[in-house]
Amino acid sequence: MSWDCEVFKFPMASPDDMSGLESRLAQGGLDAQDIVGIIAKTEGNGRVNDFSRPLAHRCFRDTIARWAKLAPAQTERQVAFVMSGGCEGIISPHATVFTRRRVDRAPGPSKRFSVAMSSTRELLPEELGGEVQVRLVADAVRQAMASAELDSANDVHYVQVKCPLLTTERINAAKQRGRRVVTEDTTRSLGFSNGASAFGIAVGLGEVKPDFDPRAICSDASVYTTRGAASAGIELMNCQVLVMGNSASSVSEYLIGHHRLEDLIDADGVRAALRSVGVTETPTSRIVNVFAKGQVPLDGLVRGWRTTLLTDSDLNTRPARAVLGTLVASVVGDPAIYASAGWGYHQGPTGGGVAAVIARA
Amino acid sequence: MSWDCEVFKFPMASPDDMSGLESRLAQGGLDAQDIVGIIAKTEGNGRVNDFSRPLAHRCFRDTIARWAKLAPAQTERQVAFVMSGGCEGIISPHATVFTRRRVDRAPGPSKRFSVAMSSTRELLPEELGGEVQVRLVADAVRQAMASAELDSANDVHYVQVKCPLLTTERINAAKQRGRRVVTEDTTRSLGFSNGASAFGIAVGLGEVKPDFDPRAICSDASVYTTRGAASAGIELMNCQVLVMGNSASSVSEYLIGHHRLEDLIDADGVRAALRSVGVTETPTSRIVNVFAKGQVPLDGLVRGWRTTLLTDSDLNTRPARAVLGTLVASVVGDPAIYASAGWGYHQGPTGGGVAAVIARA
Amino acid sequence: MSWDCEVFKFPMASPDDMSGLESRLAQGGLDAQDIVGIIAKTEGNGRVNDFSRPLAHRCFRDTIARWAKLAPAQTERQVAFVMSGGCEGIISPHATVFTRRRVDRAPGPSKRFSVAMSSTRELLPEELGGEVQVRLVADAVRQAMASAELDSANDVHYVQVKCPLLTTERINAAKQRGRRVVTEDTTRSLGFSNGASAFGIAVGLGEVKPDFDPRAICSDASVYTTRGAASAGIELMNCQVLVMGNSASSVSEYLIGHHRLEDLIDADGVRAALRSVGVTETPTSRIVNVFAKGQVPLDGLVRGWRTTLLTDSDLNTRPARAVLGTLVASVVGDPAIYASAGWGYHQGPTGGGVAAVIARA
Amino acid sequence: MSWDCEVFKFPMASPDDMSGLESRLAQGGLDAQDIVGIIAKTEGNGRVNDFSRPLAHRCFRDTIARWAKLAPAQTERQVAFVMSGGCEGIISPHATVFTRRRVDRAPGPSKRFSVAMSSTRELLPEELGGEVQVRLVADAVRQAMASAELDSANDVHYVQVKCPLLTTERINAAKQRGRRVVTEDTTRSLGFSNGASAFGIAVGLGEVKPDFDPRAICSDASVYTTRGAASAGIELMNCQVLVMGNSASSVSEYLIGHHRLEDLIDADGVRAALRSVGVTETPTSRIVNVFAKGQVPLDGLVRGWRTTLLTDSDLNTRPARAVLGTLVASVVGDPAIYASAGWGYHQGPTGGGVAAVIARA
Repeated sequence: MSWDCEVFKFPMASPDDMSGLESRLAQGGLDAQDIVGIIAKTEGNGRVNDFSRPLAHRCFRDTIARWAKLAPAQTERQVAFVMSGGCEGIISPHATVFTRRRVDRAPGPSKRFSVAMSSTRELLPEELGGEVQVRLVADAVRQAMASAELDSANDVHYVQVKCPLLTTERINAAKQRGRRVVTEDTTRSLGFSNGASAFGIAVGLGEVKPDFDPRAICSDASVYTTRGAASAGIELMNCQVLVMGNSASSVSEYLIGHHRLEDLIDADGVRAALRSVGVTETPTSRIVNVFAKGQVPLDGLVRGWRTTLLTDSDLNTRPARAVLGTLVASVVGDPAIYASAGWGYHQGPTGGGVAAVIARA
Repeated sequence: MSWDCEVFKFPMASPDDMSGLESRLAQGGLDAQDIVGIIAKTEGNGRVNDFSRPLAHRCFRDTIARWAKLAPAQTERQVAFVMSGGCEGIISPHATVFTRRRVDRAPGPSKRFSVAMSSTRELLPEELGGEVQVRLVADAVRQAMASAELDSANDVHYVQVKCPLLTTERINAAKQRGRRVVTEDTTRSLGFSNGASAFGIAVGLGEVKPDFDPRAICSDASVYTTRGAASAGIELMNCQVLVMGNSASSVSEYLIGHHRLEDLIDADGVRAALRSVGVTETPTSRIVNVFAKGQVPLDGLVRGWRTTLLTDSDLNTRPARAVLGTLVASVVGDPAIYASAGWGYHQGPTGGGVAAVIARA
Repeated sequence: MSWDCEVFKFPMASPDDMSGLESRLAQGGLDAQDIVGIIAKTEGNGRVNDFSRPLAHRCFRDTIARWAKLAPAQTERQVAFVMSGGCEGIISPHATVFTRRRVDRAPGPSKRFSVAMSSTRELLPEELGGEVQVRLVADAVRQAMASAELDSANDVHYVQVKCPLLTTERINAAKQRGRRVVTEDTTRSLGFSNGASAFGIAVGLGEVKPDFDPRAICSDASVYTTRGAASAGIELMNCQVLVMGNSASSVSEYLIGHHRLEDLIDADGVRAALRSVGVTETPTSRIVNVFAKGQVPLDGLVRGWRTTLLTDSDLNTRPARAVLGTLVASVVGDPAIYASAGWGYHQGPTGGGVAAVIARA
Repeated sequence: MSWDCEVFKFPMASPDDMSGLESRLAQGGLDAQDIVGIIAKTEGNGRVNDFSRPLAHRCFRDTIARWAKLAPAQTERQVAFVMSGGCEGIISPHATVFTRRRVDRAPGPSKRFSVAMSSTRELLPEELGGEVQVRLVADAVRQAMASAELDSANDVHYVQVKCPLLTTERINAAKQRGRRVVTEDTTRSLGFSNGASAFGIAVGLGEVKPDFDPRAICSDASVYTTRGAASAGIELMNCQVLVMGNSASSVSEYLIGHHRLEDLIDADGVRAALRSVGVTETPTSRIVNVFAKGQVPLDGLVRGWRTTLLTDSDLNTRPARAVLGTLVASVVGDPAIYASAGWGYHQGPTGGGVAAVIARA
């Protein structure tokens, strides 16, 4: 028995536009029961009060539950819902659905795309951004790797985590129990949650040793995963993990590869990611999607020049997503790509990030 | 007698940071009396209440006046101050100073960079965005062309206009005189002012016939200049024009070229602009600066995909500048480039724009 | 047979927090089948891309449908869902549920609170902001008045309309059919939709004659309703109307009254609204909620002083809601009040508005 | 010899509008050499990248220097320039100028308004928000009290501090010297700087003992001044202090009083402040200005109800100023009042603040 894993991308006219998913399900090529994850770019602010995420989340959950004839709660357990807010600039709101199913077909000689999801228990507000979150995510990454039959971390090319953030209510609740939270700034809590998740990915993939110094979490920028991204949101309190790679057990018609981005204007890095799956000319219909994560440079500088990414109190770091989205879209020739960026840690080198590419083999 | 025209670029640590200009003036290679224009990217919101522009304007004016031993008012008359707000994303705040002086040296066989400024009378609020503005700008373009000794419109590669916008006070003043303004939405007035200025550039360059239908202004998207950009601001009520091209009378060590941008992710367009001045590899120290203007697509679509550029009520079209800045910077390898973008008309094809490049010959 | 009408207010921890409604329904004092309307303040930006509204709308609809054992579509027909985005400042996110039921009890000598809903057909994008919308809303107001057994317009103290806005897609659709929309600025379309709805209220209540000049719509500020408010949103294409007043047929334990607000700092106007239902001391548990609508002054002036309400390109008119919310809350001593404000027409005198108060008799 | 202290208020059409000050100076009733302070509400975002403040600062400095025949640098030393950004809502941009001069006239039996300024040395970025800033401000408060001949802290009714904030460059500079800054979040640095300044006011006024525990700074909300406010800005690196009170040595025609605000909708607190200078009816021409400072509640609650003041990632705490401005303006009947609010510490009880009133005696 092998895994057949598929990837479907469709536009969203709004966060509650399920027509793309519905029409795929109606056509018959996509079975709701096979869905293990959805990664969507929704058009909110990507921050604390981004309600495009819970709206899309709820609609996807209810739609899949209806087609798969499952209770919504059960759907939550078997599907990773990664709603990533923020379509600044030319990023087109869209969703990518990942499926897998057992098939009675022998795999070919070359590794192919494989994907699996896992999730952690719910976190307490005071655990967010710290060692507990790191350990839980690391465990979840390992479980999903095993499930996807990705034997080596070298076969893993992208790990996406959806994780919680702090709200005033969550902070108040922790304080009433006498506990300290990592920050009382709700917007800043996204960065800490993303950072701890990314640190956990690095531990899970063996990029960081399990006996790491916890003080490095969201502090030591030299520690990072080369293949992971996290996106925090108000709509959950646990962490959901999607691990993607190329597996010898897969008969998928897709491949995945990745490359590091040195900084937010590193077009060569995007091109290197494309080459990792054999794409040298763009635009091409071979590419299904690119998943890019970027981090605002902690010193505010890009190639030695000052930017306003850390001093614009109106926009905060929201334009970083417009930057990364443009970087990828201008190379690929497609604005329907996944780009997530902001103030954060451990998701690539300082001021840089990662680009993963899924393409037809 | 020939013209020698020079171009200086320096970073700005803040809108009132004159250290870059001061050090150039102190070094002696730059004579304040030769300055005909400054184009700066300042770090405000690029909209109505952008006070980074008047702050930088005032500081530049006072600094040049002091070094040139001129009254501030006289400085205003001989220098075009184009303060362009908005450094969203990775655009680095910086300024480019343009100088020209008569030199007793014979020009070489090939045309070289030439620049001149001109300005219109002050506009009444009710004239903004309409035919009067178009005609005034067209006249100013022709004057500056003559002054720069650019005989043919084909020799012109970039025209930059700084023009006014409407404030509540200006609207109230017009209404008290019984006059109608083009819009009572102050933010939207930027787009109308930029549109009328760009229409005027097209008329001045002969891209549009002088007996055009005035109803086409800010309405007919098929009318546009291929080499012009406008930037509206609160800090003036007239239009200031900088015309740049290559002239047989110039002995400058610089060249200028340009190319159309088909859309906001048209990296090929940027590369074509670089090739127009003979640059095929990047990064290179030959390039002094790229001046890019982009327009948000009027249907909100980029390559057929929906964007949020027209429906994000928080950011409005501010991310468009982050997009264009990244497009240029990721090709050139330099975040200190000029990029201006927003909702507007007549500055290139709908949803596209223009990129002009100044490089050492 | 009389009407018994009730009003329930509860806090919302987020737009999808149904716990307040659920607990009321579980307690038994509130029957889901009696609900005719919900007016909620949700915590989005109150503009085009406010997804707190469709999220709350969907959750309320599904919750009521489940308790009332109705299909969601049927619930939409019998309940007016007025999700009003924007809790700027100290406005606390909350919802007010309105119910009515026939009871076999004779009304008392004094008129009591009565409420009814009605709705229009769906509008075409090109109808939005014009005479068609005005006429449809006027008809709906009259229907709801009759249903609430409010014989005279003098008995009507508050009319709330929820109406659509324009998105890029809706504008593109109209243009492809060769139709013109009232504006291509999606954010500004809220003001036009609200204005046409309010004009319709004025016609429905007889404050404006049925043979009005259509050119007055969103243009003549001297035309206004003294008792109506509109709130545009992306989540519907028809107009939903809630009419409230005091009826001789009602045995409700509630009363409603209202008063005009001369400007956005008219605390006396709020106090007059309280006095209209006999409240002279605050805080008091007699008050259930205050529904206030305010309009940004078209000349930007408050008591002759310049404000930034029309020139702040970052916040646009969002702070107007913080202003109105504070005005009401600081008089009533309660931040859980309804306040909606922005650029608009016909909802009270220019720069002013209306405050309606529902109190226990 | 007595002090005669005067207070002048005038509107500002923009941050660089000096016409109000110029006309007063031209009229002759105001001598530029007597000016000790200017407190202006300018229309920027009140955060890191608020360039309305340095623009107004520069214009006021140059105008006063010209009229007083002083060098700009000397003007900086003898005048406190308190540019407070943020006119959200109905706060009208305006300035209040404070003068004092020695007069040969015996004071009357009752204490009258007296004002003096002082300033600290420049702070290093790493000193901002900590004990050094507290001690320096405390010393400056005592010096200004002595200069104003305010013998007892009970005679002091308002202390205004202007203090610096952190930018990316200042943070980078500290880190390159191996120093830690209080926060690397530039926006959040305003709150820490304001908090340390306010703590310093409390020490200077004897509200806190000089041997306080430094860990209480920006941490222990039970420590606060009842009469002080701080406003951080990018335009300076030292702290400037204006102390105001009623002195037996003053012959001013003005009085000052103050009262605590329990929360952001405490209209009774504003009325108590008015009563402290004998004002019981509003509007009245006796009041020159009200200076109000408010703090966002650290738990996000107002009177037990949840607000979005700490979870709105688009507006952050900017609406708090609209709230406080409306609170004061709706009581006083005047939108040209000073209101400053945000996330902060030590400027009144948690979630509350202070209102000081200057009125004609």
